[in-house]
Amino acid sequence: MDPFSLGYLAAGLGAGLCVLGAALGIGRLAGAALEGSARQPEAAGDIRTTMIIAAALIEGATFFGLIVCILMAIK
Amino acid sequence: MDPFSLGYLAAGLGAGLCVLGAALGIGRLAGAALEGSARQPEAAGDIRTTMIIAAALIEGATFFGLIVCILMAIK
Amino acid sequence: MDPFSLGYLAAGLGAGLCVLGAALGIGRLAGAALEGSARQPEAAGDIRTTMIIAAALIEGATFFGLIVCILMAIK
Amino acid sequence: MDPFSLGYLAAGLGAGLCVLGAALGIGRLAGAALEGSARQPEAAGDIRTTMIIAAALIEGATFFGLIVCILMAIK
Amino acid sequence: MDPFSLGYLAAGLGAGLCVLGAALGIGRLAGAALEGSARQPEAAGDIRTTMIIAAALIEGATFFGLIVCILMAIK
Amino acid sequence: MDPFSLGYLAAGLGAGLCVLGAALGIGRLAGAALEGSARQPEAAGDIRTTMIIAAALIEGATFFGLIVCILMAIK
Amino acid sequence: MDPFSLGYLAAGLGAGLCVLGAALGIGRLAGAALEGSARQPEAAGDIRTTMIIAAALIEGATFFGLIVCILMAIK
Amino acid sequence: MDPFSLGYLAAGLGAGLCVLGAALGIGRLAGAALEGSARQPEAAGDIRTTMIIAAALIEGATFFGLIVCILMAIK
Amino acid sequence: MDPFSLGYLAAGLGAGLCVLGAALGIGRLAGAALEGSARQPEAAGDIRTTMIIAAALIEGATFFGLIVCILMAIK
Amino acid sequence: MDPFSLGYLAAGLGAGLCVLGAALGIGRLAGAALEGSARQPEAAGDIRTTMIIAAALIEGATFFGLIVCILMAIK
Amino acid sequence: MDPFSLGYLAAGLGAGLCVLGAALGIGRLAGAALEGSARQPEAAGDIRTTMIIAAALIEGATFFGLIVCILMAIK
Amino acid sequence: MDPFSLGYLAAGLGAGLCVLGAALGIGRLAGAALEGSARQPEAAGDIRTTMIIAAALIEGATFFGLIVCILMAIK
Amino acid sequence: MDPFSLGYLAAGLGAGLCVLGAALGIGRLAGAALEGSARQPEAAGDIRTTMIIAAALIEGATFFGLIVCILMAIK
Amino acid sequence: MDPFSLGYLAAGLGAGLCVLGAALGIGRLAGAALEGSARQPEAAGDIRTTMIIAAALIEGATFFGLIVCILMAIK
Repeated sequence: MDPFSLGYLAAGLGAGLCVLGAALGIGRLAGAALEGSARQPEAAGDIRTTMIIAAALIEGATFFGLIVCILMAIK
Repeated sequence: MDPFSLGYLAAGLGAGLCVLGAALGIGRLAGAALEGSARQPEAAGDIRTTMIIAAALIEGATFFGLIVCILMAIK
Repeated sequence: MDPFSLGYLAAGLGAGLCVLGAALGIGRLAGAALEGSARQPEAAGDIRTTMIIAAALIEGATFFGLIVCILMAIK
Repeated sequence: MDPFSLGYLAAGLGAGLCVLGAALGIGRLAGAALEGSARQPEAAGDIRTTMIIAAALIEGATFFGLIVCILMAIK
Repeated sequence: MDPFSLGYLAAGLGAGLCVLGAALGIGRLAGAALEGSARQPEAAGDIRTTMIIAAALIEGATFFGLIVCILMAIK
Repeated sequence: MDPFSLGYLAAGLGAGLCVLGAALGIGRLAGAALEGSARQPEAAGDIRTTMIIAAALIEGATFFGLIVCILMAIK
Repeated sequence: MDPFSLGYLAAGLGAGLCVLGAALGIGRLAGAALEGSARQPEAAGDIRTTMIIAAALIEGATFFGLIVCILMAIK
Repeated sequence: MDPFSLGYLAAGLGAGLCVLGAALGIGRLAGAALEGSARQPEAAGDIRTTMIIAAALIEGATFFGLIVCILMAIK
Repeated sequence: MDPFSLGYLAAGLGAGLCVLGAALGIGRLAGAALEGSARQPEAAGDIRTTMIIAAALIEGATFFGLIVCILMAIK
Repeated sequence: MDPFSLGYLAAGLGAGLCVLGAALGIGRLAGAALEGSARQPEAAGDIRTTMIIAAALIEGATFFGLIVCILMAIK
Repeated sequence: MDPFSLGYLAAGLGAGLCVLGAALGIGRLAGAALEGSARQPEAAGDIRTTMIIAAALIEGATFFGLIVCILMAIK
Repeated sequence: MDPFSLGYLAAGLGAGLCVLGAALGIGRLAGAALEGSARQPEAAGDIRTTMIIAAALIEGATFFGLIVCILMAIK
Repeated sequence: MDPFSLGYLAAGLGAGLCVLGAALGIGRLAGAALEGSARQPEAAGDIRTTMIIAAALIEGATFFGLIVCILMAIK
Repeated sequence: MDPFSLGYLAAGLGAGLCVLGAALGIGRLAGAALEGSARQPEAAGDIRTTMIIAAALIEGATFFGLIVCILMAIK
């Protein structure tokens, strides 16, 4: 078997798992943000800011993980 | 085995996992947005804006992941 | 093994996962939309519009993923 | 191994996953529609229309996925 | 290995997944219909009609998927 | 390997999945029917009729799937 | 490999899945029946009749599936 | 490989799945029975009778499945 | 491969699944019994009797399954 | 392959599954016992007795299963 | 393959499953104990005693299982 | 097989699992933070600080894990 | 295959499962402790003591399991 | 196969599982801490201290597990 072959497999599955996690996590917190801003419309701006900070923390880890995957995809 | 063979497998499964995650995540947050805009119809515009921002954050990671997959599919 | 063989496998499973995710996600948000429009019938038009926007966001990622799969199925 | 062999496997499993997802998704939203039309019988017509639109969005992706699968089954 | 061998496997597993999904989905929506018609017995006829429409949408996709499977079983 | 060997495997597992789904689905809806007829004993006859219609829809798909499986078991 | 070997495997696993499903399904509906007859003891006879009808629908599919499995076990 | 070898494997795993299902199902319904007889102690005798009937329905399918498994274990 | 080898594997895994199921089931019903006897301390004796009957039904199936497993372990 | 090799594997995994089940089951019932004795401190002694009886029923099946496993580990 | 090789694998995975179960079980019951002692601080001592008895029952099975695993690790 | 091949596989899957966990965990806590700051807008600053501390604890373990993975990807 | 090879695999996966369980268990009980000390701040010291005792019970089993794993990693 | 090859695989997967568990556990308890400090802002300092103690207990086990993994990655 070619040594890079399993690396390609890992790149695809790893990217899939990364995006799966990121989407579920952001979906969870954005859902709470939307429920919150519906319950208290006057706090909507503050909630949106917190939501973007939290989403950015997830995006950071996600893109780091995706870069590990893309390193192996372009080998 | 052909070295690209596992890459094809990864491309398909990875794309599937990416879309699975993205759809579940957007479904989760859009569900909350719809419940919220039903509870407070006068805040519906503000909620819809927040929903699209959050969905865009998920779509960003999803398309990045899909591009990793398509790179291997067209190899 | 033929190099395209695993590509065929990926095409089928990937398409299955894409549709699985999309259906669950749209089912989740449309369920919320239907509960919402039952609770506040006068906001039903607005809710339906938001539902279709959110579903379109999911459909977009789904069809992108399905095209990755069909590329490998017709190879 | 025959190159189409794994394609046959993918066709069957993919069709199974597509229908699994579609059935769960439509079951979820139709369940919400039925709860809603029981809570507000006078809005039943409007709810049923929204339910069919949402189900159609799921059916669209499902049949697209099934066609990917049937392409490989009749190869 | 005989090329149709994996097709037989796919036919059985695919049929199993199709029926699993359809049964869970119809079970979910019919459960909601039964709860609804117990809560508002005077709307029972209307609810039963909506239930059969929704179940028909699921049955449609299910039988399409089962036909994909039976095509491979009788090969 | 004998070509029918995997067909036998598929028959058993497919039958298991079919019955698993059907039993869970009927259990779900019959549970709702029983809760409903306990809450409103005077509507018990109407609920039982709806329950049997819904169960028949599931049984239909289940027996269709089981016939796909038995076709392969008696090959 | 002996061609009936996988048939034996399928018989055991299929029987296990059938019974797993049937037991969970009957457990679900009988649980609802017991909660219901505790809430309204005067309707206990009617609920028990409905419970046995619903359980019979599940048992029917289960024994059909078990017969598919035993056909392969005694081959 | 000896043809009965997989039969032994199936016997053990099948017996495990049967008992797993039966135990979960009886646990579910007996739990409901115990909650019910705590809520209405005067109906405890009636509930216990219904509980034993329902458990007998599960035991019937379970022992049928276990006999399928033991047939293969003593081959 | 030695023909009894897979039998040993089945014995261990089957025993594990049996005990897993039995423990979860008894845990479920005993949990309900304990909640019930905390809510109505004067019915504690009656609840404990019902709990032991139900647990005995589970233990019966469990030990039958474990005997199937031990038959293969001491072969 | 050495015939006892799979027996060693079964011993470890089986022991793991047994303990996993027992711990989850005792955790479930002891959790209910603790909630109960917090709600009604005067019934704490009676609840603790019932808890130990129920835990003993689980321990019995667990140690029987573990002995099946240790038989294979020391072969 | 070396006959002890699978024994090493079993030791590691079995130890992992044992600890996984024990940790989840103790986490479940200790969580209930903490909720209970927060609701009724004057019963905290009694609850803590019951919690340690129940945890000891889990620890007993866990260490028995871990000893089965360590027997194979040091072979 | 090349010795580094499985290392590449591990790098991709490990990175995927790390990001999956981190995203779910941060999504869980940020969701609670957003619900909390919607319920008590005047405590939003304090909640946001606690949220970032907790997220930092998760990020720490995540990046440590990702570095283990990237060590193997660039080998 | 080298006999220690599977031992290395077991060490890594076993350590992962141990930590997974310990983290989920401590997360569950510490979550309850935090909810409790928020509901009754005057009992916070007592709750924290109970939390550390319970966590210590989990840590004990976890480190015992990790030592089993590290024994095989350094072989 | 190279003996260290499976060690590399174990290192990656083990690290992934460790971080997955730690992130979920800390996410669970930090979520409870955030809900608690939103419900009682005056106890926020005390809750944050307890949160960090509990998170430290999880981090301890996590880093111990990660060190087991990194030992095998740098072999």
